[in-house]
Amino acid sequence: MQQHELDQRFMQLALEEASRATAVGEVPIAAILVRSNDVLAAAHNLREALQDPTAHAEMIVIRKAAEQLSSWRLTDTTLYVTLEPCPMCAGAIVQSRIVRLVFGAWDPKAGACGSLFDIPADRRLNHRVDVVGGVLEQESQSLLQNFFRLKRGRTASNDEHHV
Amino acid sequence: MQQHELDQRFMQLALEEASRATAVGEVPIAAILVRSNDVLAAAHNLREALQDPTAHAEMIVIRKAAEQLSSWRLTDTTLYVTLEPCPMCAGAIVQSRIVRLVFGAWDPKAGACGSLFDIPADRRLNHRVDVVGGVLEQESQSLLQNFFRLKRGRTASNDEHHV
Repeated sequence: MQQHELDQRFMQLALEEASRATAVGEVPIAAILVRSNDVLAAAHNLREALQDPTAHAEMIVIRKAAEQLSSWRLTDTTLYVTLEPCPMCAGAIVQSRIVRLVFGAWDPKAGACGSLFDIPADRRLNHRVDVVGGVLEQESQSLLQNFFRLKRGRTASNDEHHV
Repeated sequence: MQQHELDQRFMQLALEEASRATAVGEVPIAAILVRSNDVLAAAHNLREALQDPTAHAEMIVIRKAAEQLSSWRLTDTTLYVTLEPCPMCAGAIVQSRIVRLVFGAWDPKAGACGSLFDIPADRRLNHRVDVVGGVLEQESQSLLQNFFRLKRGRTASNDEHHV
C-alpha cells in the first residue's frame, strides 16, 4: 500500500475515534499514533469530561504512547490528527520527537502547523517534523461543523470553539 | 506589598522548588500557580522520572490546579516559572486562560514568550496573557548552568537541554 493510501486509512480511523467524542459532548477531534503501521494509541478530545485544559487528543495520545513505550522519545512514529494542532500540541509533537504529522482540516483560528505558526518546521527548534495537511479534510471539517451547528441549535448561543 | 515584591517572593518559591529537581536528576525548572496570593499548585520538571515528554513544570502545575478547581479555566491566576516557557507550555497557558505569566530566565533556544515566538501576546489567538520576564533571572540561570556543568562533568558528553 502506498503512503498516501496508508495516510487515508489511518485518518479514517482517527475520524471514527472523533465521532465517538460527539457522543459524549466533546468537540470531535481525535488523534492516533502509529509506528510501523501499528496503532500505538488513540484518543479523542476530553477537555470537558476531565476538566483538563491540556486534554486535547494529541496530548492524550502522546502521554499514552510514552507510558506504553516507557520513553519520552516517540521515535519512528507518525501522528494522525483530524484537525491542525494548536501551539500547545504542536510544541508537544516537537518535544516528543515524533517524525511525521498528518492532519485533516486546517485550523485558520489556532493552527500552529502552517496556519498561524509553523512550529513543526521551525529550524530554530531542536527537532523538525514532516507535515502533511489536508488528508480527508472535508470529512474532518464536516464532523466539526455538524457538532457546532447542533450545539448552537441547542444552546442558542455562540459557545467558543475549543481550539 | 507591591506587585514587584510579590513577584520576587513567588519566584523565590519557584526557585526553591526547582532546586529540588536537581536532587533527583531533572533539569531544574519549576512552576507555581497562584490565585489571590495563595499557591494553588507547585511542581518541577519531571520528564525523566515519568518518561513523559509533556511533563514540564508548567504542564504539571496547570493539570494539578485544574483538577483541584474542577475546572479547565484557571481564571484569575498567575503562573510563575523559572524559565521562559516553550511553545507547548506557552500554548497550554493560553488554553487554560491564565491571566498573568511571570518568568525568570529568558530561553533564546526555545522560548515562546518573546524569544522565538510570542504566543501569550498573539492577538490572533482567543486569549491573551500579560507577561513579565526576567524576574530573578540570574538566580534561575545559575541554577540551570550549574546543573548542566555538573552533568557534562559526569557524562563527558553534550547531553541535550530539555527545553
